[in-house]
Amino acid sequence: MSSNTMSRILLLGSVGLGSYFAGIYVERTKSANHQAWTADDYVNKPTDGCVSQKFQRKPGLPIFGTVSAASPVPAGGDAVVQSNVSRIGQIMKFGFPGLDNVRSYDDFVLSYDRRTRVAHWVFEHLTADRVKHNDAVDRSKCDFKPDESMHPFFRSLNSDYKGSGFDRGHLAAAGNHKSEQKHCEQTFFLTNMAPQVGVGFNRDKWNHLERHVRKLTKEYPNVYCCTGPLYLPRKEADGKLYVRYQVIGANNVAVPTHFYKVVVMETTDHRLEMEAYVLPNQKIDEGTPLTMFQVPPETIERAAGLLFFDKVARNQLSKINGKKL
Amino acid sequence: MSSNTMSRILLLGSVGLGSYFAGIYVERTKSANHQAWTADDYVNKPTDGCVSQKFQRKPGLPIFGTVSAASPVPAGGDAVVQSNVSRIGQIMKFGFPGLDNVRSYDDFVLSYDRRTRVAHWVFEHLTADRVKHNDAVDRSKCDFKPDESMHPFFRSLNSDYKGSGFDRGHLAAAGNHKSEQKHCEQTFFLTNMAPQVGVGFNRDKWNHLERHVRKLTKEYPNVYCCTGPLYLPRKEADGKLYVRYQVIGANNVAVPTHFYKVVVMETTDHRLEMEAYVLPNQKIDEGTPLTMFQVPPETIERAAGLLFFDKVARNQLSKINGKKL
Repeated sequence: MSSNTMSRILLLGSVGLGSYFAGIYVERTKSANHQAWTADDYVNKPTDGCVSQKFQRKPGLPIFGTVSAASPVPAGGDAVVQSNVSRIGQIMKFGFPGLDNVRSYDDFVLSYDRRTRVAHWVFEHLTADRVKHNDAVDRSKCDFKPDESMHPFFRSLNSDYKGSGFDRGHLAAAGNHKSEQKHCEQTFFLTNMAPQVGVGFNRDKWNHLERHVRKLTKEYPNVYCCTGPLYLPRKEADGKLYVRYQVIGANNVAVPTHFYKVVVMETTDHRLEMEAYVLPNQKIDEGTPLTMFQVPPETIERAAGLLFFDKVARNQLSKINGKKL
Repeated sequence: MSSNTMSRILLLGSVGLGSYFAGIYVERTKSANHQAWTADDYVNKPTDGCVSQKFQRKPGLPIFGTVSAASPVPAGGDAVVQSNVSRIGQIMKFGFPGLDNVRSYDDFVLSYDRRTRVAHWVFEHLTADRVKHNDAVDRSKCDFKPDESMHPFFRSLNSDYKGSGFDRGHLAAAGNHKSEQKHCEQTFFLTNMAPQVGVGFNRDKWNHLERHVRKLTKEYPNVYCCTGPLYLPRKEADGKLYVRYQVIGANNVAVPTHFYKVVVMETTDHRLEMEAYVLPNQKIDEGTPLTMFQVPPETIERAAGLLFFDKVARNQLSKINGKKL
């Protein structure tokens, strides 16, 4: 890592650092079988098949038919599965950031970190049509619910968040999935949540960023959005760098220090532009413009252990964070 | 997570807790194409093929022919590759603990955490024959070296450790791989290293545990050993739980708070016994017996986000931590 990039990471690791990002512009810049499952099954029963088969298969085949608790295969449902497959191919058109415990829902795809109980990344494909108001979709009828396709050892529960002081913050925003009620409902799986500071973050600046991403669909026919958590180091009093984050609830759900969004916009003439943001998981002054949180995408990649939009060489992008390459 | 298990995790999260493990006995109890690669290639070149193909393919096919920087395919080497495949199948006989960024070397297999730059787990198969002294193998001729199969954003380097005060601690112990010089040399890839406290840990109690595991081969014909890092939470002054760990070097290599070993021994009559250990990454009193560090394997699974030996139901083991089931 160059010392230049390193110093950016250090900046990221500071708290209340939004304003430090001013003027940072960029010069250059995998699915699982799902099945309800209990700890008991795992611990005590002979494993016909085996646990690894049930939970860990096929991450090398991420765009193939995904059967999930979220999208049960209907009887005679080949056509439906096929449609889900091509939708996933569309969402993941520019590559998977990583392949750890990939879960495909009907309108978004995520990779779950079983250690932190928070996704590594969540991928969405937005169009004006998909994000526009739809009377048939009612967010207030959606319930937060555990994803039973996840082994109970690694599953986050509503009780983990209760009394923690943190919001169950959507990674794939509910407001991005308005074609069908089911799409909206699936964003309420706890696999798609992370503990977020409510006032000043989830309900405010983070929400502004989500609205900004949706607005991009007015200008660009296709918008691809990757969202996830970061656990960034800070220098402590002894001069050394430490990663430090709270964990909440009986399942020790990690409270990320920061969240990122890496967004690729496709123009009508098929040029690609990228925007990359990192926001600290804390109350952020309302007046801070979103551009203050733009960072070089590599900074996020190094910190998250992921590679974003890796089917596109970075120098093939026409703009990064508003700056022409 | 039951409050019982939770209190065990809390115990694990404390520092200097070796003695707290006394009397804890158990009631019940995922390959990649390898290629040298530079950041430059990734950032600036058009990707024929694509980066995800080059780095992330085939984790769903973990026992198939692995081509690694560590084991170049010799000309006309089908037989050699085949032999490597069956060795990997042997090592991983009882299941992959996880499938994130799996790397297969000639005599051990590991899963790499690109975010922490430390493996999730390292798997070995030991026999008396493989661990016995071999004049043809000279550890002093082995050099610590970066694994160039890993993308440079996520690769740890010798320079990361230099001046950190931490040892480059082997996960797969060098002393477990004495059949061939090459096997020993491959344990010196930095993908197999974690920052460990030297005096009182890596060079002492942790080394005792490694010797204990080798000794098991005198009693059991087959010993399977899974080793890795933990990042355990601790309660801080505000009464909340936090995970906190140092990161070292320009690549922010994580310093695990603890290390685990989960070992399965196969008896001559094919019964299976398990031992599971967690040791804090700190100076440990020489006199503390290893049994003090035994923990229920589920405790490690929950904390690490992994499932060990998941092809074997836990209740099919004849003993866990010395206690009959």
